[in-house]
Amino acid sequence: MKLKIFVTLKPGVLDPQGKAIQHALGSLGFAGVDDVRAGKLIEMQVADETTDAQIDEMCRQLLANTVIENYRVERA
Amino acid sequence: MKLKIFVTLKPGVLDPQGKAIQHALGSLGFAGVDDVRAGKLIEMQVADETTDAQIDEMCRQLLANTVIENYRVERA
Repeated sequence: MKLKIFVTLKPGVLDPQGKAIQHALGSLGFAGVDDVRAGKLIEMQVADETTDAQIDEMCRQLLANTVIENYRVERA
Repeated sequence: MKLKIFVTLKPGVLDPQGKAIQHALGSLGFAGVDDVRAGKLIEMQVADETTDAQIDEMCRQLLANTVIENYRVERA
């Protein structure tokens, strides 16, 4: 089974990487870009019998810092 | 208009970050995890009149390194 895990910063958490991207896009002449947030996308292959609880544990233990990040799992 | 831009390494490009994640998941006792690839997710707000060509330019000029990375744009 293929998984896509999207890890994004929680609203309100400062995102210097996003700010840098926003600034750089402005410098390149792209106007109207706002509220840029940088997150992570992790794709992986797991055994078909992997349970939702196990996937959740992976995210909580390693892939996302749940103090400042949200995660969303998509199965494909 | 809200955009989500997914930047992923092209197949065949070595992904040390993905390998590190895969190894760490194995160490934590999650078996059967394979082919982990780490990518980026960039969310942003752009003006409604932004054209597809402009978004493409943003990706090519700044957000993705098209030599080694693919990108996909999702409008929301």
